[in-house]
Amino acid sequence: MRTIDWNDESNSIVMIDQTLLPMEYKIIECRTLESLCEGITSLRVRGAPALGAAGAFGIALAATLSNADDMDILTEELKAAAHRIKATRPTAVNLAWGVDRTISAIPDAYNLDGIRDVVLAEAKNIADEDVKTNKKLGKHGARLLDDGDTVMTHCNAGRMACVDWGTALGVIRSAVDAGKEINVIACETRPLNQGGRITTWELMQDNIPVTLITDSMSGHVMNNGMVDKVIVGADRITGDAVFNKIGTYTHSVLAREHEIPFFVAAPISTFDPNNWEDTVTIEQRDSKELRFFRDLQIAPADVKVYNPAFDATPMENVTAVITEKGVFYPPFLLDELIA
Amino acid sequence: MRTIDWNDESNSIVMIDQTLLPMEYKIIECRTLESLCEGITSLRVRGAPALGAAGAFGIALAATLSNADDMDILTEELKAAAHRIKATRPTAVNLAWGVDRTISAIPDAYNLDGIRDVVLAEAKNIADEDVKTNKKLGKHGARLLDDGDTVMTHCNAGRMACVDWGTALGVIRSAVDAGKEINVIACETRPLNQGGRITTWELMQDNIPVTLITDSMSGHVMNNGMVDKVIVGADRITGDAVFNKIGTYTHSVLAREHEIPFFVAAPISTFDPNNWEDTVTIEQRDSKELRFFRDLQIAPADVKVYNPAFDATPMENVTAVITEKGVFYPPFLLDELIA
Repeated sequence: MRTIDWNDESNSIVMIDQTLLPMEYKIIECRTLESLCEGITSLRVRGAPALGAAGAFGIALAATLSNADDMDILTEELKAAAHRIKATRPTAVNLAWGVDRTISAIPDAYNLDGIRDVVLAEAKNIADEDVKTNKKLGKHGARLLDDGDTVMTHCNAGRMACVDWGTALGVIRSAVDAGKEINVIACETRPLNQGGRITTWELMQDNIPVTLITDSMSGHVMNNGMVDKVIVGADRITGDAVFNKIGTYTHSVLAREHEIPFFVAAPISTFDPNNWEDTVTIEQRDSKELRFFRDLQIAPADVKVYNPAFDATPMENVTAVITEKGVFYPPFLLDELIA
Repeated sequence: MRTIDWNDESNSIVMIDQTLLPMEYKIIECRTLESLCEGITSLRVRGAPALGAAGAFGIALAATLSNADDMDILTEELKAAAHRIKATRPTAVNLAWGVDRTISAIPDAYNLDGIRDVVLAEAKNIADEDVKTNKKLGKHGARLLDDGDTVMTHCNAGRMACVDWGTALGVIRSAVDAGKEINVIACETRPLNQGGRITTWELMQDNIPVTLITDSMSGHVMNNGMVDKVIVGADRITGDAVFNKIGTYTHSVLAREHEIPFFVAAPISTFDPNNWEDTVTIEQRDSKELRFFRDLQIAPADVKVYNPAFDATPMENVTAVITEKGVFYPPFLLDELIA
């Protein structure tokens, strides 16, 4: 199934619980806004494009659950739901984008049930479009990969970060579909190990060769000639920087040092050209993530921890941005790309 | 107690089991060469200087346990023990150094018991000297740290990596002893988390402020002006490179990019000027270390893993090497330093 989807029978959101992968493959159902928000905060669903769909389905869920008997009241309720969903993860721009796009469909409705219909239809559109977008993006990006390449990636910008196919891993999938042999090096991506748990699992399911390393090894493998290209996803691309999973900036500096191309694969919905590195708030996550691995203690229980979820990679470190509209090179004039 | 020591009553080696820290503080006793070798391979004792003492005490243990009734036979047995101990960890040079120095004391003996006496005395000397060496090294290095500095370190080059005091953390301890306020950023150091488990625990015991980060954050914290200096230890310093825990090279590139001093703290016994980066074998460790955290699965059980224990940082990335003989700057003429 898709990473996240709408269940028409139960009028609920269904998703793969990514916190359990690869040890357990479990589908969970969100029947309340509460459980959706918990799922987003706990990273049961994560990844910029998947969060776009999650936000959109969240509005549809709020509309379905509402007892409002007046269009204005329902509209106000959905705006409150929008506010609540967006607050779950402040850095990823797609979440807000999915929410806002769904909300903006409301004026197309003529009555109460119409609102419910248009927001659900818009949410489904967003999910469907995401898959198409990733396939287009993948096809554009695949041209950048050569037969025999070893590609390093960080975190999970794959099927599990999207509704399907993936961005960074979508590019790799498209290259493999085009008959190229691609080897992947997956950085485990501390502290929540999305690379070690999810990227490896996804690629092994597709029989794409993957080798797991610790994040700290990226310099070593680059210096030893083991990496031809780096591809990562993005959670937000401002006028001057790519916000992505913590560690991305470190890899970008190392790639430049070793003259290895550093590609960012992201749909246009990730672009936020009116913001800048210093106007974006980086989400700080719970200290527990470094003190424990699940329930297993791995550090002093009261040690001080610094745990930003993202970092900012300046556009100077980026070789090209791969989008559904094509591949873009410096100077990255985001306004023109979006137009 | 010291990290590793000789117990005169039971004629055995005692050590703190570092695999259990910080959750459990347990002293274990090695009464056989077998258990010592297991302890070294499993990293119950680790860190270059501590391994020097472990190797030395290993020879003393072999001498104590031997039933040989002839000096030549005992000497041959000790050479076999030396070979066996050295094979446990091929990259760290201090292990071999401690073994060889103890073996080289044998000709000072006039009879069977004399051999047992001289090797034990030499092993105890090595352990005692290590503490003195680290204190000297710490004093030299402390001058490089300014009051108020935040110092980033990787892995554990502290008390637990030595017989006592520490190398990289010894420098920090000496600076604190000299009245300077030093804040430490500890990289957790995947896959075995010596930074997250041991460095944090050591520093918290000494009330030295420490903040834990993931290894991947090093670029981000440097780019955000949170790091004034980097200090790491070393497992082997060849004519052209510093071999240290995997991840060190990555940090060195980032430090240079951000114009942050990158210091290596190591006793002269770590120097190996007749070898070069490409003549040293880097120990490859078990894939399990990335697939599991203790017994907890954290990646597909059959995922391919690349797991080198060390990497090589070229001397060009090193600002200064701190030793018991003083602080050395480029060009690092190792032969002259050792002389």
